[in-house]
Amino acid sequence: MALLLDNQFQELPPDKAVDTKLFLEAVSHLPPFFDCLGSTVFSVIKSDINGNITKIRAVYVEDPAKYITLQDILEAERQAHGAAWPKVGATLALMWLKRGLRFIQIMLQSLADGDRDMNNPNLIRVNVTKAYEQALKKYHGWIVQKIFNAALLAAPYRSNFLKALSKGEEVKEEDCLANVRQFLVNYTATVDAIYEMYTNLNAELDYTV
Amino acid sequence: MALLLDNQFQELPPDKAVDTKLFLEAVSHLPPFFDCLGSTVFSVIKSDINGNITKIRAVYVEDPAKYITLQDILEAERQAHGAAWPKVGATLALMWLKRGLRFIQIMLQSLADGDRDMNNPNLIRVNVTKAYEQALKKYHGWIVQKIFNAALLAAPYRSNFLKALSKGEEVKEEDCLANVRQFLVNYTATVDAIYEMYTNLNAELDYTV
Ligand SMILES: CCCCCCCCCCCCC/C=C/[C@@H](O)[C@H](CO[C@@H]1O[C@H](CO)[C@H](O)[C@H](OS(=O)(=O)O)[C@H]1O)NC(=O)CCCCCCCCCCC
Ligand SMILES: CCCCCCCCCCCCC/C=C/[C@@H](O)[C@H](CO[C@@H]1O[C@H](CO)[C@H](O)[C@H](OS(=O)(=O)O)[C@H]1O)NC(=O)CCCCCCCCCCC
Repeated sequence: MALLLDNQFQELPPDKAVDTKLFLEAVSHLPPFFDCLGSTVFSVIKSDINGNITKIRAVYVEDPAKYITLQDILEAERQAHGAAWPKVGATLALMWLKRGLRFIQIMLQSLADGDRDMNNPNLIRVNVTKAYEQALKKYHGWIVQKIFNAALLAAPYRSNFLKALSKGEEVKEEDCLANVRQFLVNYTATVDAIYEMYTNLNAELDYTV
Repeated sequence: MALLLDNQFQELPPDKAVDTKLFLEAVSHLPPFFDCLGSTVFSVIKSDINGNITKIRAVYVEDPAKYITLQDILEAERQAHGAAWPKVGATLALMWLKRGLRFIQIMLQSLADGDRDMNNPNLIRVNVTKAYEQALKKYHGWIVQKIFNAALLAAPYRSNFLKALSKGEEVKEEDCLANVRQFLVNYTATVDAIYEMYTNLNAELDYTV
């Protein structure tokens, strides 16, 4: 379980401002995880997410003192880009990144809650599909939705997925899921805070790809 | 038609050695073409091909005098990497790149030859499928094959594709196809030469992704 617990997200401050540096540090541990899912399909998703993180980091390192929180970045870009905003820069990258993060959140939550296809208890398709429907589907046109349905067939078995979460260590299933629940506390709060920020700043778009 | 004809591949010398610099120059004009196909699906293919080109160029610029021809690169890497070769470095990148190039070649050839679905004369699915079956399918596992089938639905209409080939200029269909035939002469010879080189050096692999 090292993988998730070693890289906990930080507890948010009362004003729910997300610290850019800590966020980038925590989130950068997620993409390598796609490597252990064992299909070329996931490398495409990994590079999309990596691209988002790289773009946000590039803005941050330009002026770390100016971009202490994620909201600082969005507000500066709103100022700088006029009508092109929010479909631009780190604002766009984080808009998509948060959807990938929400996908991961719902999928892990669904596993932790014990959602399971009783006819195929060792598959995680129900959990993946639930996450897809809530986090991503509405932003995908019908062709990408079809591609998702095909890609779903590459999802690992539940047992292998839990093992991968535990970095290959032999951990009892209940211990692994307890660790997932622990991980989800600050992680979910962070993702929620980013969604709220997009709503508050009117920075959310719903075009499809 | 500017697009293709501006960036002709060079005629090969009698020994069919492919000049690395000229090859990299000519091939780097292909990926931007995927942008005008109008779907996010193609950006994934574009980055895969771009990744291949970047990898080959990175080796070339280390020592241009040493890597005059593509064969110089493969032979140097065979020497340097021992048992890991050919699934390594620019040898691996070119192994995949040539398949993408073959795909494009067969697809354009099929258009030039007039292969057409008489029930759907404005679709290019027959041409795309023919190219896929001959150039890529055997290197893709069943899930990626399914993803291809879904991605095929994003293929542009024939008329739009020909227009894109002509860089958006209004060109008569026959003129456009004549230009394609012209482009294919040196292009096909180059791709053939690369395939032959892989056979001769025993550098070809047939694992699936
Ligand atoms: C020869 C064979 C040919 C076949 C080729 C087929 C290729 C098919 C490719 C299908 C799409 C793959 C997934 C990527 C989708 C991406 O298109 C979207 C939007 O991506 C965003 O787009 C923006 C512009 O609109 C900016 O460029 C963003 O970039 S920016 O940083 O520059 O601003 C970028 O992230 N991201 C998404 O939908 C996010 C996806 C997150 C996924 C989360 C986990 C899902 C797990 C699923 C498990 C089953
Ligand atoms: C939330 C939604 C989730 C959905 C996510 C789904 C994502 C699905 C992604 C499907 C695959 C997309 C295409 C990419 C396939 C690639 O996997 C393969 C092998 O790619 C090679 O792999 C090597 C290692 O084995 C090295 O890394 C090479 O890299 S290296 O340079 O590092 O050595 C790399 O090119 N390339 C290929 O098969 C080549 C493809 C060429 C395509 C040519 C045109 C096709 C046109 C088709 C028109 C319809």
